[in-house]
Amino acid sequence: MPANRDQFNKFFDELEDEVIAVAANYGLPSAALDWYRRSLRYNSVGGKANRGLSVIDTYEILLGKDLSDDEWKKAAILGWCIELLQAFFLVADDMMDQSKTRRGQPCWYLVSGVGNVAINDSFMLETAIYILLKNHFKQESYYVDLIELFHEVTFQTELGQILDLITAPEDSVDLSKFSLEKHSFIVRFKTAYYSFYLPVALAMYMAGVASDENLKQAKDILIPLGEYFQVQDDYLDCYGKPEVIGKIGTDIIDNKCSWLINLALKKASPEQRAILDANYGRKDNECEDRVRKVYDELSLEQEYFNYEEQIVAMIRDLIKKVDYSTGLKPEVFEAFLSKIYKRQK
Amino acid sequence: MPANRDQFNKFFDELEDEVIAVAANYGLPSAALDWYRRSLRYNSVGGKANRGLSVIDTYEILLGKDLSDDEWKKAAILGWCIELLQAFFLVADDMMDQSKTRRGQPCWYLVSGVGNVAINDSFMLETAIYILLKNHFKQESYYVDLIELFHEVTFQTELGQILDLITAPEDSVDLSKFSLEKHSFIVRFKTAYYSFYLPVALAMYMAGVASDENLKQAKDILIPLGEYFQVQDDYLDCYGKPEVIGKIGTDIIDNKCSWLINLALKKASPEQRAILDANYGRKDNECEDRVRKVYDELSLEQEYFNYEEQIVAMIRDLIKKVDYSTGLKPEVFEAFLSKIYKRQK
Repeated sequence: MPANRDQFNKFFDELEDEVIAVAANYGLPSAALDWYRRSLRYNSVGGKANRGLSVIDTYEILLGKDLSDDEWKKAAILGWCIELLQAFFLVADDMMDQSKTRRGQPCWYLVSGVGNVAINDSFMLETAIYILLKNHFKQESYYVDLIELFHEVTFQTELGQILDLITAPEDSVDLSKFSLEKHSFIVRFKTAYYSFYLPVALAMYMAGVASDENLKQAKDILIPLGEYFQVQDDYLDCYGKPEVIGKIGTDIIDNKCSWLINLALKKASPEQRAILDANYGRKDNECEDRVRKVYDELSLEQEYFNYEEQIVAMIRDLIKKVDYSTGLKPEVFEAFLSKIYKRQK
Repeated sequence: MPANRDQFNKFFDELEDEVIAVAANYGLPSAALDWYRRSLRYNSVGGKANRGLSVIDTYEILLGKDLSDDEWKKAAILGWCIELLQAFFLVADDMMDQSKTRRGQPCWYLVSGVGNVAINDSFMLETAIYILLKNHFKQESYYVDLIELFHEVTFQTELGQILDLITAPEDSVDLSKFSLEKHSFIVRFKTAYYSFYLPVALAMYMAGVASDENLKQAKDILIPLGEYFQVQDDYLDCYGKPEVIGKIGTDIIDNKCSWLINLALKKASPEQRAILDANYGRKDNECEDRVRKVYDELSLEQEYFNYEEQIVAMIRDLIKKVDYSTGLKPEVFEAFLSKIYKRQK
């Protein structure tokens, strides 16, 4: 049965205590311990936890049975390691993007008294990952694989982030830097590795099916799947219903390197291109409307529907062709795809 | 013979190429590769590299012979890993402290076009450590020990940093938060572990003498030694000759949790305490002079001389009492001590 979000969130209390205990053992004074605890909680808990939960779900599918309490706990620890990795990135991303809110509350760096200390706090969120791995997985034969996997995915996410930051800085619009190829790199590296590949790879290590071939098979499906997920995100930002997705999209105003603008740039006539150059990334609703009008002229919504059918057919085909003789199961990939296909939010 | 700084600096070219090659293999577009290369070089090279060089020197002492080219290279790689760790911290520290210059050039975040992107750049400096460790030490029996050591020292440094940041924020003076105990924790964790213990521990792993007992013996000397080094730094900030140390001290004006203010707080009369409360951490030269006058009334310079003789005698005693039967050598510790004792800059 699917992992229970409340149970997963409650379990964080234990892990938080455990991380704080390491700092307390060093003799860190209580004001600093309290600060660390507050940062861990504020930044890790309160999201949807889809990535963390998917470690548990995937592990259960791979084992083909209900998880014992110990099995659930192990998977939940690795799930929280992904949530901590995400917290580490989000605290920093919000500072770099000058975002205002995250998960319905002020971004951590905007909380009274925090400010730039949030940079060190982001480091300490990352460090918590390796404390938990050491405490719970040091005896496992795949301990070093887990560490290397987190290091690799961290690097990949940072590479996606740096390319995004220099391609689409919020305060300097230059659409000649954009391309569908760069968009693909950014979304694969910045999102797909840690959100889709990482949870499955972690579950595969625990289940003992993480051969190089199996990891490669999983990656070859999950990275395109993650790219599709992010293209959807870009589509919903412009064409989703605000009352359903819970926010009003700002990609056009914020000069985001979105799938839509990249497709528009590819299809635009010289006249349309001039309109995009003059109006994309401007803090002005009329400029935004002009960009949207070009999107409509280029039938981008229909283009998206075509893309979705094509990519889903391709992914289904990939799922079919996997060698399932050494432990992988098609349900792992189908579970992800069914959550994503035609999602409205 | 002591490690050659020019040779060490030149060797960075190879390591830089190696790290960039990993990103290039992922297909990262060239603008982002160039960015990463520039950040690696700007932030890692150009300092005194004392920490990196001391890995080589310590390794040579432990082996008791001149290093072969391969041995030199291995030690230099670990030396650069410390320099990268320091670069990771300094890029972030400079942002958190709102510093202006570092090593005679603008802080990275102040370089034109960088800004808050420096946060992600600091992450990528840290990541380079683990790329180098994996490329060069994966076959070694102590590979996982190296990774855990870097993780642990990273955490310790972050703990020192958070305590420093919340004890002595530049814009809010509250001397009741200060104490000699907190000062000791801050300097041990923020500086001593990565600057003194880490280089020796790394050399010990390479030399095959890193038993738990030997590591503990080394730590028990090097952490007090590192604390002494930082107390000297605090002393020199106030009493060193600007033309020798190359800068004018600003600890009083910047509300730093320095050894001097903590000692002054311990010794001050109620009247002197009132002067310190009213004048410490103010951006005003007259306030600074009033604090200095209290320091003089309390004979802090003489107190420092007494401290130095005591701590050095204690460290010499510790060095004498080490069990050198399983690979440690007194020259390792003496080399550090002789570089520090009575230094003027």
